[in-house]
Amino acid sequence: MTFRAREAIEQAEVIAGYKTYIELIRPMIEKKRLISTGMTREIERCREAALAASEGHRVALISSGDAGIYGMAGLMLEVLEDMRKLDEVEIEVIPGVTAASGAAALLGAPLMHDFCAISLSDLLTPLDTILRRVEAAASADFVIVLYNPKSKKRTKPIEAAQEILLRYRGPDTPVGIVRSALRAGQKVVLSRLKNLLEHPIDMQSVVIIGNSQTRQVGSFLITPRGYQL
Amino acid sequence: MTFRAREAIEQAEVIAGYKTYIELIRPMIEKKRLISTGMTREIERCREAALAASEGHRVALISSGDAGIYGMAGLMLEVLEDMRKLDEVEIEVIPGVTAASGAAALLGAPLMHDFCAISLSDLLTPLDTILRRVEAAASADFVIVLYNPKSKKRTKPIEAAQEILLRYRGPDTPVGIVRSALRAGQKVVLSRLKNLLEHPIDMQSVVIIGNSQTRQVGSFLITPRGYQL
Ligand SMILES: C[S@@+](CC[C@H](N)C(=O)[O-])C[C@H]1O[C@@H](n2cnc3c(N)ncnc32)[C@H](O)[C@@H]1O
Ligand SMILES: C[S@@+](CC[C@H](N)C(=O)[O-])C[C@H]1O[C@@H](n2cnc3c(N)ncnc32)[C@H](O)[C@@H]1O
Repeated sequence: MTFRAREAIEQAEVIAGYKTYIELIRPMIEKKRLISTGMTREIERCREAALAASEGHRVALISSGDAGIYGMAGLMLEVLEDMRKLDEVEIEVIPGVTAASGAAALLGAPLMHDFCAISLSDLLTPLDTILRRVEAAASADFVIVLYNPKSKKRTKPIEAAQEILLRYRGPDTPVGIVRSALRAGQKVVLSRLKNLLEHPIDMQSVVIIGNSQTRQVGSFLITPRGYQL
Repeated sequence: MTFRAREAIEQAEVIAGYKTYIELIRPMIEKKRLISTGMTREIERCREAALAASEGHRVALISSGDAGIYGMAGLMLEVLEDMRKLDEVEIEVIPGVTAASGAAALLGAPLMHDFCAISLSDLLTPLDTILRRVEAAASADFVIVLYNPKSKKRTKPIEAAQEILLRYRGPDTPVGIVRSALRAGQKVVLSRLKNLLEHPIDMQSVVIIGNSQTRQVGSFLITPRGYQL
């Protein structure tokens, strides 16, 4: 967590956020009013947060990682726009450490060259669009970071993604799977593209696929930037 | 800055890094030994840091933003590998807030959907490879974040990138240019793809190009995630 994020939480009178994230900051928010709902009621949570803010309260809406990357920042702005309150309340988006950065740090340095972040969740995006992006990223040799890679019910997208990737990259391309980076239950797995689906992957995980230059050295993944040593 | 980063700096006996970044943390490093060199002597700096670490000192190598994204993490690991010290010293990569996240937060929420990070510096990467990536990212409707977008001498890559982007995206596609995000001299500009090159862009800047859904609403850029309000 950044200093600015903690300061904003401390200064807020009202805390809004998904239950799991609220639990992570419990010691910092004693006695504050909570707007907390489950995973599927994001819009409602944003509306309540907007109402509290427009009544003059200082509200902190909590996101994991970086609020601006598959986080709550965008929906919050859209809800404020929809409620015609975008000009009425003062807004600060506080950036954070996204899962790609957290996972990459645990793996070594896989993101030292150009990369793409792709969410494999087809709840809000057609699977076609997702796979078209996987293919474009694969074809231009981007390192690829997969968010929302797989859930109990949603196993098809990552299977399709692996198949596409294997058309463009060697079966031994290094991959990293990081679960709950920098949190309780953290797990780091180094593997190869061909073996990707043999490892447990869930919604607490992020998957990083190396580019054609990525090497595994000991327990590290390194994507060289191109320096001549 | 994160709490963990500050803690690591405080715990270190030796601080290595590019001058400009050392200046930013000057108050935190009084009386510590410094390994500080200019921009072009990165390898030397890493070698010195490796030597100090293998002599038993606790060394903090400073990077701006996230050390793992076009930062010092990869080169440091490569240098340690080259010196056969990768197993000898204990290594922790501490993730940070990358420029993409910092800039996006100041612009609103442009990174709410799949995005690519591309460095336009052709010092270590052939321009062909860079432009192939711009084209792939453009064709699959990724939001695009351009690092190292332009220097005094290097103006061609961003001109070529704009030309490619205009083949795939409307001239009015929203773009944001953020200089020195969250630092002294911060500047935020909202513009359109067709007008991109009319604004000052330098090596302290990052450029974000919206996808086909990105909208400018008041002073915010929003890339909708797809929620039905
Ligand atoms: C709705 S997105 C939120 C992303 C978050 N805003 C960020 O910037 O990291 C949820 C997905 O992010 C990834 N994620 C978030 N936190 C993570 C962590 N600590 N370790 C690994 N993956 C994580 C997982 O892929 C998860 O399915
Ligand atoms: C060598 S890269 C280092 C990137 C850094 N490791 C990160 O994660 O942000 C330098 C480039 O990052 C971008 N950058 C770094 N800090 C920035 C800031 N505060 N505001 C805008 N762009 C920044 C600029 O594009 C700059 O040319």
